[in-house]
Amino acid sequence: MTHKPLLAAVLGQKQPRPPIWIMRQAGRYLPEYRAIRARTKNFLELCYTPELATEVTLQPLRRFDLDAAILFSDILVVPDALGQPVRFEQGEGPVLEPVTPQTIASLKPERVLEHLAPVLETVRRLRAAMPAQKTLIGFCGSPWTVATYMIGGRGSSDQAAARLFALRYPQAFAALIDILVAASIEYLVAQLEAGADVVQLFESWALNLDDAAFEERVIAPNRRIVEGVRARVPNAPIIGFPRGAAGNLAQYAARTGVNALGLDYATPLDFAARHLPADLPVQGNLDPLRLVAGGPQLDERVEQIIAAFAGRPHIFNLGHGIVPETPIEHVARLVDRLKNR
Amino acid sequence: MTHKPLLAAVLGQKQPRPPIWIMRQAGRYLPEYRAIRARTKNFLELCYTPELATEVTLQPLRRFDLDAAILFSDILVVPDALGQPVRFEQGEGPVLEPVTPQTIASLKPERVLEHLAPVLETVRRLRAAMPAQKTLIGFCGSPWTVATYMIGGRGSSDQAAARLFALRYPQAFAALIDILVAASIEYLVAQLEAGADVVQLFESWALNLDDAAFEERVIAPNRRIVEGVRARVPNAPIIGFPRGAAGNLAQYAARTGVNALGLDYATPLDFAARHLPADLPVQGNLDPLRLVAGGPQLDERVEQIIAAFAGRPHIFNLGHGIVPETPIEHVARLVDRLKNR
Repeated sequence: MTHKPLLAAVLGQKQPRPPIWIMRQAGRYLPEYRAIRARTKNFLELCYTPELATEVTLQPLRRFDLDAAILFSDILVVPDALGQPVRFEQGEGPVLEPVTPQTIASLKPERVLEHLAPVLETVRRLRAAMPAQKTLIGFCGSPWTVATYMIGGRGSSDQAAARLFALRYPQAFAALIDILVAASIEYLVAQLEAGADVVQLFESWALNLDDAAFEERVIAPNRRIVEGVRARVPNAPIIGFPRGAAGNLAQYAARTGVNALGLDYATPLDFAARHLPADLPVQGNLDPLRLVAGGPQLDERVEQIIAAFAGRPHIFNLGHGIVPETPIEHVARLVDRLKNR
Repeated sequence: MTHKPLLAAVLGQKQPRPPIWIMRQAGRYLPEYRAIRARTKNFLELCYTPELATEVTLQPLRRFDLDAAILFSDILVVPDALGQPVRFEQGEGPVLEPVTPQTIASLKPERVLEHLAPVLETVRRLRAAMPAQKTLIGFCGSPWTVATYMIGGRGSSDQAAARLFALRYPQAFAALIDILVAASIEYLVAQLEAGADVVQLFESWALNLDDAAFEERVIAPNRRIVEGVRARVPNAPIIGFPRGAAGNLAQYAARTGVNALGLDYATPLDFAARHLPADLPVQGNLDPLRLVAGGPQLDERVEQIIAAFAGRPHIFNLGHGIVPETPIEHVARLVDRLKNR
């Protein structure tokens, strides 16, 4: 029996009050984060320096009574570890030299854990530093989402490059997914062994896929990761967050084997009641822009969300990452509202 | 009783073979379109020149045995007509000087029909030129979608500017929606009176909205347009296409009063069976990139789509606009497949 309310909710135990964390809670809306980020040459240096990554991971817990910390890292450390270097360009996001059907075989799965040793060291330091009742969340990007960057070379709103690649080069695409599944299992098992209580699979680009593509690119690889991790860490607690899964959400929940389902903010509140198993833990799903705007609409929506999920284990969260423009006092007010009820 | 199979399907009459049209079928994948576009200074000039707009509307019907033509125009002619000029910059898409809470009152609904007279002239010419069995589709952008451009000043993948505006300035936002609802009713009624058989409401940005925002910004305005148009043109046939509505799709179908529902390609095929009324006509929903890639995956998916909607009136279409890279021979093959079965 765990004494961590958030972990308990992931494991299916309804809590008296919904525990809360905030996607991207260690981030640019915090001046103390911006101060540390300014001291590093580039974003990945911050992810790969355990002292700094530990510090920024813990910063939001000093300000707000959150129930979890999430490892400060990025989903693209995996391609970086596989030997496809990732640069973060100012104002542009990540940039990679795109893989081709020919170059996929030269990725180096065997070096992933060595390359990511500093991240695993951060997990160990966090484990030692975290209060006993707080949950430590590790994570990785899901294979399709990571592949969209590896193939497209950068973020895009329609993932067209990766979608076409998957249709034109099905064998090369399957080989890339296999590599990412294997690397993700290794990486998540290592995070759990280093002290993560829970891991989350970020399928940030689960949108823009028809059901056949969703089955092949999202459900099957996420399921293989869940099974692969649990083969090594029995009963490992896993949250799946398929952003934009929409009409495919119930399938994702039923078939991947995740313990808890992250809901993006576009998921209607009555969707869970109508389409998800009654005891399935859910996480979410406030629109981050409601937290920016604040005021009565924010309080009203928070209450709607809490009421909608009151019958099942619920972890309160945003339905997407917090944005840099978010006023800190709005975050404080939100957390207070969750804690004092 | 109509002799136009596509119109009949919109009206709820199941056809022996699904009629077909293709979103953005008059477009850059056609060399004859590019030739005419090259003769015009800017994109809106093409929309506002009846001779040229008529010609490009009819071009795809000369190549392919499609069941409908859709008026060549753009959803942003409405803000342009309201006095918020729209420029289309090369490679950038539309650019507008954003409205503010202060400038909304200076929009000029009374000049919309006069400004759009050339577009209505195009509809009349098309009506005269179209074969009797082909359906002529008119359209406008739905208020929320048009507002995202009017507020944001350009397209964006998350519509953040408009989403924040709606939360921060609810009264100004409601006033803008009122103006767009009224202008859209006038414009669609005029299109129907000029000879359009059917009109489609393009809610291209129905995604990124929580259910409360979806209700206010999508369902309510679309419903007001449907009711307003039908008050003037009884039983006007209307297709609603709320792209990305996902979990909100059944609500949209149940509450707006549209005759037929356009499905984006991310809508799972079994969604209609499970969540939409059994007799509701649907339109869609092939991923345009499958049409680019071609080959066996294309044929297989086309058959899946036809089979999934065989029990109800179905209009075959893409689940989003055709892209410029699409090989013309893939389009020909698709249309042949639909016609020879």
